This record gives sequence, C-alpha cells and structure tokens, in this order.
Amino acid sequence: MTDLVELERRGVIAHLTMNAPGSLNALSDAMLAALKARFTELAADQTIRVVVLKGAGKAFCAGHDLKEMQAGRQAEDKGRAYFADLFERCAEVMQMIPALPQPVIAEVHGIATAAGCQLVASCDMAVAAEGTRFGVNGVNIGLFCSTPMVALSRNVPRKVAFEMLTTGEFIDAARAREVGLINRIVPHDALDAETSRLAETVADKLSAAVKIGKRAFYDQITLELAAAYDHAAGVMVENMLWRDTAEGLQAFIEKRKPDWAE
Amino acid sequence: MTDLVELERRGVIAHLTMNAPGSLNALSDAMLAALKARFTELAADQTIRVVVLKGAGKAFCAGHDLKEMQAGRQAEDKGRAYFADLFERCAEVMQMIPALPQPVIAEVHGIATAAGCQLVASCDMAVAAEGTRFGVNGVNIGLFCSTPMVALSRNVPRKVAFEMLTTGEFIDAARAREVGLINRIVPHDALDAETSRLAETVADKLSAAVKIGKRAFYDQITLELAAAYDHAAGVMVENMLWRDTAEGLQAFIEKRKPDWAE
Amino acid sequence: MTDLVELERRGVIAHLTMNAPGSLNALSDAMLAALKARFTELAADQTIRVVVLKGAGKAFCAGHDLKEMQAGRQAEDKGRAYFADLFERCAEVMQMIPALPQPVIAEVHGIATAAGCQLVASCDMAVAAEGTRFGVNGVNIGLFCSTPMVALSRNVPRKVAFEMLTTGEFIDAARAREVGLINRIVPHDALDAETSRLAETVADKLSAAVKIGKRAFYDQITLELAAAYDHAAGVMVENMLWRDTAEGLQAFIEKRKPDWAE
Repeated sequence: MTDLVELERRGVIAHLTMNAPGSLNALSDAMLAALKARFTELAADQTIRVVVLKGAGKAFCAGHDLKEMQAGRQAEDKGRAYFADLFERCAEVMQMIPALPQPVIAEVHGIATAAGCQLVASCDMAVAAEGTRFGVNGVNIGLFCSTPMVALSRNVPRKVAFEMLTTGEFIDAARAREVGLINRIVPHDALDAETSRLAETVADKLSAAVKIGKRAFYDQITLELAAAYDHAAGVMVENMLWRDTAEGLQAFIEKRKPDWAE
Repeated sequence: MTDLVELERRGVIAHLTMNAPGSLNALSDAMLAALKARFTELAADQTIRVVVLKGAGKAFCAGHDLKEMQAGRQAEDKGRAYFADLFERCAEVMQMIPALPQPVIAEVHGIATAAGCQLVASCDMAVAAEGTRFGVNGVNIGLFCSTPMVALSRNVPRKVAFEMLTTGEFIDAARAREVGLINRIVPHDALDAETSRLAETVADKLSAAVKIGKRAFYDQITLELAAAYDHAAGVMVENMLWRDTAEGLQAFIEKRKPDWAE
Repeated sequence: MTDLVELERRGVIAHLTMNAPGSLNALSDAMLAALKARFTELAADQTIRVVVLKGAGKAFCAGHDLKEMQAGRQAEDKGRAYFADLFERCAEVMQMIPALPQPVIAEVHGIATAAGCQLVASCDMAVAAEGTRFGVNGVNIGLFCSTPMVALSRNVPRKVAFEMLTTGEFIDAARAREVGLINRIVPHDALDAETSRLAETVADKLSAAVKIGKRAFYDQITLELAAAYDHAAGVMVENMLWRDTAEGLQAFIEKRKPDWAE
C-alpha cells in the first residue's frame, strides 16, 4: 500500500510522491490510506523537518477516483454509508496536513483539480510549474466541490473561489499566485530544484521553532485579536526559553553563525 | 413598483435592471422594495438558474437616495426610526443575495458607490466594464459607509477596505479585480455579452448542484475548519445520491455528455 | 522618555517618529513605553484627526531589542517573567493602534522586520518607499515570529504569511502591496509628502464620522454577517443624526461645500 505514496528521504526533507499516474493520482481509498499512513509516519519522525508532496506522471492530482465512487453505489443504501465514510476519510487526510508538525509544500505540475486542488490549498505552501492549471470542476459532472471549497475558500478571496466552484473553469499559475493559492511559479524543468531549495531554506531554520510556529499559526488564525495575541505571546515565551534560541540571539548579536544543538 | 427593477428572462437566466437612471439607480425606499420583491420572486422560481443584476443609464448604482433620507428628518424623532428601518431594510436586501438559491452576478459599469459598491460586494460574482470605478465615499459627506463596509471588508484585504472607507477615493476596475472585489473586466461594449457568457456557463451546470453548493459556500465560510468539513461532507453525500449526479459521473467515465433529467 | 518617540503636530495630523536610529528603532522596553505614552496622549487629543508613524534613520523598525532580551535571561527564572511581560506589553501597544480613535498610517522605509513588520500590519494603512523590504525573520535566529504573525496573518493570504514566517525571507514593496500589507508605494524622496497627502485626505473628512467608522470597522470584521449588519446599521443611524452629517448630505444635494461645525 505504501508504494502508492513513495517516500524518498533527502536528508531532513521527506519527498512524498503520489504514484498512480494512470489515474492522474486519483484519491482512491487506497491512496487516501497511503497518504494517511505516510503523514502518520512522518509526524512521528523527528529527523524530518520539511515534507514535499508531489504527483508522479502528467499531473499532481485529479481528485477522487470516480470509478471507485460509482462502484460504491452497488450497496443496499446506494452508497450513502460509503460516501459518508469516504468524505470523512478524505477530510481527515486534508486536515492532517496543517496538523503535521513539519511544514508541507505542494510541488504541483500539470493539473490540480477537485480534491487535488484541495490538497494544494491544504498544504502550508505550494510551488507550481509554469503551465499548471487549478480547478474545482466537480460541478461540471453534477458534483459540487463542497469539501474542496472548505480549503480553497480559506486560501483565496470569496469571489474567486465562488467563480471557480460554479464555473468549473481553470485558473492558471499566475492567477493562482496572485490570489494566494500558491507561493511560487517556476519553469517546469526547475520544479524539483526550486521546491527543494524552498524546503531547504525552511529546513535550515531551528526545527523546533518552525514546529511551534506552524502549530501556533493555525491555532491563532481564527481567534479574536486579543485571544490570538494571548496565545501567540505564550508561544514566544516558551520559544525564548530554549537553549538554541538563546544561542541564536547571541550569535546574531555577535555576528556569527549559531551553534545549535538540534 | 416592479418596473423600478425590470426583469427580463432570457431562458433560464434572469436579468434584473435597476431602472432609475435619473438618480443613478439610487437605493430609494421604492428601489429597495422592488429589489426585495424581485429577489423573493426569483427565489421561488424553479426555472431560473442564474441572476444578473445591472443598472440602467450611466451607472450601476450610486447608493442611497440622499433627498429621501433628508426628507426623513422631518419626523418628530428627527428621522431616527426611519433611518433604523431604512438600514435594516437595506441590509435585508443585501443579505438576500447570498441567501438566494441561484448565483447572482453583478454586471457593473460607470460607478458603483456607497451602497452601490455594497451591492457589488454582496453579489456572488461581478463583471465590470473597463473604466468602472468603485468607491465607498459616504465619508466625503460626513456619513461613514458603515453598512457597505460589512460587505466590502468580506471581499478585500483589510487595508484596502480601510483606505477606500476613510479616503472616499475610487479604485479602478483593475485594482478591484486584483483585490477580489470583482471577477472579470471586459470592454464596455462587450459587457452584456461577457456577463451573459459567464451566466450561461454556470446555468449549464446541474442546477441542483450549484444551489446546494452556493448554500454550503456561505454556511461553511465562517466555521472552524473541522466544523466546515463536517458540514461540507454532509452536503457532498446528499449531492452524490442524486440520480443526475450518478449520471454525471458515469457520463464522465464513459466520455459522453450527461443525460440530465432536470 | 518621550523623546524616543517624537511628536510633531502639523495642524490636525500627528507625526510620530521612532527615534532610535542606532538600533534601527528597536522596540526596546523604553520604546514600547514611549509608544504607549504617545498613543495614550493622542487618543485623548481631540485636535488630532490622523496619526502618522515613521522611523528615524535608515529603517522603519527592525523589531525587538535583542540585547535587552538577552540581558533578561540573567533573572532567576531565566527571563520567563520578563519575556511574558515584554510580549504582553508589546501586544498591548500593537492593539492600541486599531483601538486608537484616529486612523494610523505607517510611513515605511528601509526595512520593517519582525515586530517592525507587525507594526506595519497593525496600522490601519501603510505607505512605503520604493525599495522597502518586509520580513518576519525571527525564525532565522531560532525565534519564530509568533506575535507578529497575529497581525500579519490578518493582512495577507495564509500561504504568503506562512512563507514569510518559515523562510525568514523578505518581500519587496510591490509584493507587499499586491498581497495587502501596504496601500501605496512612492519614490523615497516623495515618502513624506505622499503620506502627508493621504493623511490630509482623511483629515479633511468629518472627523467624528471617521472615528465612528474606524471603531465599527474592527468591531464588525469578525462577526457573522447578520450580526455585523446589525452593528453597522446602529452605527449609521447614530451617524445620520449628527448635525454635521445632515449638513453634509444637504450640501451634496445643493452642490456646495458643507459648513461643518467641528
């Protein structure tokens, strides 16, 4: 099962590759299980500082596995229980990404559609190859992308999300960056190198600081301003008391590189 | 009264035209009542899939009817009760737009100011002619656009909204698109055609899916992530169980057009 | 102490200058106290309509005073109580800005980093000189910018904030404007003049309307739509009942300048 999401370790960076190119890396039951297993594995792996998520073949990910979904209709309840379970499992995997201790970078090429676009939106950052197209186009086949909408509408302005959801039309990489869905656009043949460079930049930081910061990012973002500050201030106090942070500040004052223990 | 907001049916698309060009389609008591009546009528109309809202004459809408407001001061309470009722009625009309089952597209030209800009912000999508200008300029006459601010600040970044509200200055269509207030800009003489094209694109989708999706969009947008996913997953299960959605998925798998009953 | 934040009154506009160029206007204990004192003074000053906040020397503000923070570690508790108090005082100063009756405009040049970038994000508007760079780069020294994140993530899209926080990299003024962190970019030698022009534009409005509007802006922004409208409608009714607002509307109708009492 885990071959469906290959894990390559390049030092402290984990590269996950969804590997079902024949289905454009569809989020089948098996693919969702494999992603969950990999995220669970990496969450517990203290040696990994950054995770990159990409897709094998021609595209990043084209969303759910429609054939498998149609097969689910054979049940006595016409699939109701299966679909409820499927969308719950999918939402669980999506929510594992912001909950993962390490930053997760989507490395996107080809297309990212429906739940594939949701995956991009769910990642902490995203780098896309020129020519990549993004869509939440379930509406074209009569299935509104309601769960992808949850992640998308927390990334981009309302009217942009609404248009994508109701027209089913793609946006290109430039528009995706302008509206906040992705961070960077690079030529296709530089995609791996540039995403790795971004991952390394983050991996070079004090890992504990990145982890405490990522958690605080999502913890505070929906709080009222005063509550958000209370929470964040508590996080900064903890962060300040670490030995490595003391060393980091001292090194900066002394204009030298920090000698971090981690 | 209903002539104040003309309704033209072009197949499944309703084109509403605010028709008081002499006042730049001011949101008078009568205009608000006419909009409410039309929205109520269309909400119950199963044959309409998309609504387009535009203004007759030189501008989309220039906000409230100032002469009528001034006349309201003649009351014993200096207008307090009238103003409270007016802003309540106006807010009710604005909130009818996201609550309408069908997507509503603002077709904007000339200017959209104060409550006219609020109308644009309240619509699900907006297409503007080149040269259109947007402002919340009540502050210029001593009346801060507090209710327009509610819609505007849910469309654009905070500092953009704050600047518009406190300077009273216009932004042009290009900036409006960049910040999320509108979706598309077209040459003035293509405005009707391009807005209609967008409306038709949405109208060609499975109408029930668009409706359940629009409702879910606004239901989930202010929820916490986990609650939003719970809600959206329930919507997707319902959507999956429809006959037309089953057909939509099957048609996609078989690379043919869906044969929808609706 | 107050010399640390100089106050220059130019008519109804207060220009505050953080004046510790040797430390790039670091937010030391003394600087935070001086800002608090100035904000307290200006909040009670009915003659001031707009506040401009800038930095003396080569930069706007480079964040906390690291040497002072390191010195705080000498305490028996390794600085825990001091750091908790420091971040609470800093968050209090940041929250004084949206709570101030008058709009506050950041006039930014050079760099705005860490809590200096938080200051920009906390201001109601911001004008930057070409070449200004913005960063939340505490992560580079092992201290994640958790409290700056609170203000930043309420100004810009999530992925933009996340990238800045975890890479520690700068964004330039053009990107800062695109994503919503600043309002305007001007040539460096026009910075004072252009910021003053923006301040004067706001100062020319009915001051009471700007004040009631600013308060309503932050009061409504996190409310549900219906509650936000209820709140804003109440504000508009009060605003309408003022003598100067009645005069403002009448003057507009009569195409003349309003004769405001204030």
